[in-house]
Amino acid sequence: MKYEFGLVGLAVMGQNLARNIARHGFSIAVYNRTPQKTKDFVANYGDEGTIGGAMTPEELVHMLAKPRKIMFLVKAGQPVDDMIQAFLPYLEPGDTLIDGGNSYFADTRRRCKELEAKGFRYLGVGVSGGEEGALNGPSLMPGGTRASYEELAPIFTAIAAQVADGPCCSYVGDDGAGHYVKMVHNGIEYGDMQLISEAYFMMKELLGMSDDEIGDVFEQWNKGILDSYLIEITAKILHVKDKESGKPLVECILDKAGQKGTGKWTSQEGLDLGVPIPTIAEAVFARGMSAYKEERVEAAKVLRGPSATFDGDKKALIEAIHSALYASKICSYAQGFALIKAAAHEYGWTINFGDMALLWRGGCIIRAVFLEDIKRAFTNHPDLANLLLDPFFKEAIETHQDNWREAVIAAKRYGIPTPAFSSSLDYYDSYRRGVLPANMIQAQRDFFGAHTYQRVDKEGTFHTEWEQQ
Amino acid sequence: MKYEFGLVGLAVMGQNLARNIARHGFSIAVYNRTPQKTKDFVANYGDEGTIGGAMTPEELVHMLAKPRKIMFLVKAGQPVDDMIQAFLPYLEPGDTLIDGGNSYFADTRRRCKELEAKGFRYLGVGVSGGEEGALNGPSLMPGGTRASYEELAPIFTAIAAQVADGPCCSYVGDDGAGHYVKMVHNGIEYGDMQLISEAYFMMKELLGMSDDEIGDVFEQWNKGILDSYLIEITAKILHVKDKESGKPLVECILDKAGQKGTGKWTSQEGLDLGVPIPTIAEAVFARGMSAYKEERVEAAKVLRGPSATFDGDKKALIEAIHSALYASKICSYAQGFALIKAAAHEYGWTINFGDMALLWRGGCIIRAVFLEDIKRAFTNHPDLANLLLDPFFKEAIETHQDNWREAVIAAKRYGIPTPAFSSSLDYYDSYRRGVLPANMIQAQRDFFGAHTYQRVDKEGTFHTEWEQQ
Repeated sequence: MKYEFGLVGLAVMGQNLARNIARHGFSIAVYNRTPQKTKDFVANYGDEGTIGGAMTPEELVHMLAKPRKIMFLVKAGQPVDDMIQAFLPYLEPGDTLIDGGNSYFADTRRRCKELEAKGFRYLGVGVSGGEEGALNGPSLMPGGTRASYEELAPIFTAIAAQVADGPCCSYVGDDGAGHYVKMVHNGIEYGDMQLISEAYFMMKELLGMSDDEIGDVFEQWNKGILDSYLIEITAKILHVKDKESGKPLVECILDKAGQKGTGKWTSQEGLDLGVPIPTIAEAVFARGMSAYKEERVEAAKVLRGPSATFDGDKKALIEAIHSALYASKICSYAQGFALIKAAAHEYGWTINFGDMALLWRGGCIIRAVFLEDIKRAFTNHPDLANLLLDPFFKEAIETHQDNWREAVIAAKRYGIPTPAFSSSLDYYDSYRRGVLPANMIQAQRDFFGAHTYQRVDKEGTFHTEWEQQ
Repeated sequence: MKYEFGLVGLAVMGQNLARNIARHGFSIAVYNRTPQKTKDFVANYGDEGTIGGAMTPEELVHMLAKPRKIMFLVKAGQPVDDMIQAFLPYLEPGDTLIDGGNSYFADTRRRCKELEAKGFRYLGVGVSGGEEGALNGPSLMPGGTRASYEELAPIFTAIAAQVADGPCCSYVGDDGAGHYVKMVHNGIEYGDMQLISEAYFMMKELLGMSDDEIGDVFEQWNKGILDSYLIEITAKILHVKDKESGKPLVECILDKAGQKGTGKWTSQEGLDLGVPIPTIAEAVFARGMSAYKEERVEAAKVLRGPSATFDGDKKALIEAIHSALYASKICSYAQGFALIKAAAHEYGWTINFGDMALLWRGGCIIRAVFLEDIKRAFTNHPDLANLLLDPFFKEAIETHQDNWREAVIAAKRYGIPTPAFSSSLDYYDSYRRGVLPANMIQAQRDFFGAHTYQRVDKEGTFHTEWEQQ
């Protein structure tokens, strides 16, 4: 008997994906560099399906039906290249290697091209949803050799998260497209988390609300347009008490945020491709700023903010913060989709943006009802230049924009940092401007560096000797 | 007779630097890949000093006194590596190669290490001030082999821009430090230009002022705390009329800003090192947004902003914009210096920040009276964690912050995009906070990914099973 699928790397993600596959009735052979891990896994979970253990790469390859499908769940970077080299001697043309880790998309592009040139097939699959998702239904974002994906679709769509519109898995595009989309997913996740934090901070600092009260607000918000996993867990978090002190646990947590690099990659890609994604970049910078904890504590003793305290309508401000969160979120997603659009052009991918929205509808961290509206937007207009131009979102922002502005204005007036709210609003106000002040920048560049400029009224490239006018 | 200095690459920057060196009484031998260019240069400018022409790299090397000093003014990237290879066979240990182009600092680090390992010396020199500066006094930011810089100091300090406190040239640090500082200079330049554009745009769009009126305001501002080259040329630009139409020329210029990559590099470095530099990144994104001209023109037909028109005190708002420009500029420079500080730590450079401020006092694009205040700040406290903590700047922001907030609030209320003003204010409001809402982000990360967290009240790393609380 030959197994349908091979999986390499039995850390938690690998284990859970393997079990998910086995539980769906697909036979799977697994391999880990440490043989004991393989033996333990088969011993612990062998009864969940048809699971075989291999002690060497060669053995794994021989256990699989042809053409073989082998998925790596190993650390991104050199380990992936090492694993490819370990398996390559035993593979035949037509076999597929699959990288299910958090690889940088450019690495996936390179590997895919190298392996395809040798007659092999390669898939880079973004997997989101954490350990829980891996076991019970992740969001899968596969890119690479299309023909190979078609063969694997029955397995992938079965193990993925399922929503009303179907499974959260569909082919994204060639070579690194899947890992790219996963990277942008994470960038958007950074944005969402920062926006939520700013909403929480305004309620806490400006309105003096307790964590329970704020948690109730988030719980309420989760029943409406903001309905999403991250809002849901935020409400839960705010209601959890520290066992020892009885205080809200979140207030016992040090305000130094960690990061693993995907938000940074996304921001750097926006910069590389010239696509403005300020909300995401501000979210990354905010984590950087949070890490300067000791410096901030010292600075807080010296630097003053406004002394006034809020004396407006509390309920109205909560409503304004709700609008700010929603409208900013629209801008953040608009940025993420614009980045993927530019990447598709840059790297030669054909991407169906409606399908992509559906990928994120379930299973992953940014899953939200909201993504159905995005799916609808791109289904109605597959070539939509920017999410902001979709009638639904255009109207949504029109409905919320006065409130949104009031929330940002209150933050600025009372000195509450809201970099993601502000930069989202500036993004909106920039994007809807037929004329921006970049003519001044071009004039300056031509003045000091003879960089030349274009004109609004005629074709050509011009230079002025400004000092001699 | 042997020449004191060799220069390779006779495009405008190379020609002007060579003439500057010759005019200061240093003998110089030049080489260009196209021999005719060398001949023409010697024929045209040979009378400005002691200038010799070489037809091959070998000839140039033999024309120079030992230890030799050869400066490249060639395109960044592969051409620099090619030129190094072209000269290497003829050099002896102790000779110095100097890269005066816009090289990426990591390339300079690599080249410096490789050449030093072979017994050669290497300098990467940031040169700012454009063609004009190269001829009459640039800002020079030299990094690399220190002993070599000491020998070259008489030439470099003679040809650099001179200000009251001395020449705008001093040793920055090892290997790529000079090119790094030049990169950050350019990032700050992006920030300055964006801030000026926002001030111009608010006066134009919100206050309906003519370009002449706005130019008069900048002229006035240039006599005070904002006194700087960029404010000076902005005033001049606004007064220049298009010859054909009689309209202000700047209004005939297309609002699509170009960029050459140094602002992008700076922003990406901030992301890599975890140093928040949002003002600079927003300036880069604003150029990216400007490039979406056609999309914006379409969006402007559909997306609505606030309908209200400004009915406040015009003079007060101009004053507020002035404060916003000044306070935001302080934040932008604080970010740039914080980035260099982090880079010095990361790459092992010993940098004197006061000297660095002086480097930028004259010659370069961001030259400003303001840099004397920065120099003073770092002279008084060489280890200053952040410019915002210097008493002078702390007070400056305190004086201007109400106005600054009013300007940003007006922009948000009336829908004028001011991403650099806003992000600077958010930077200030974040930095002066002992507590930021990153505790929420850590709680979320621990909730969905078991990323763990630290606590405010005890040492250690903690994880909570949030769903089970």
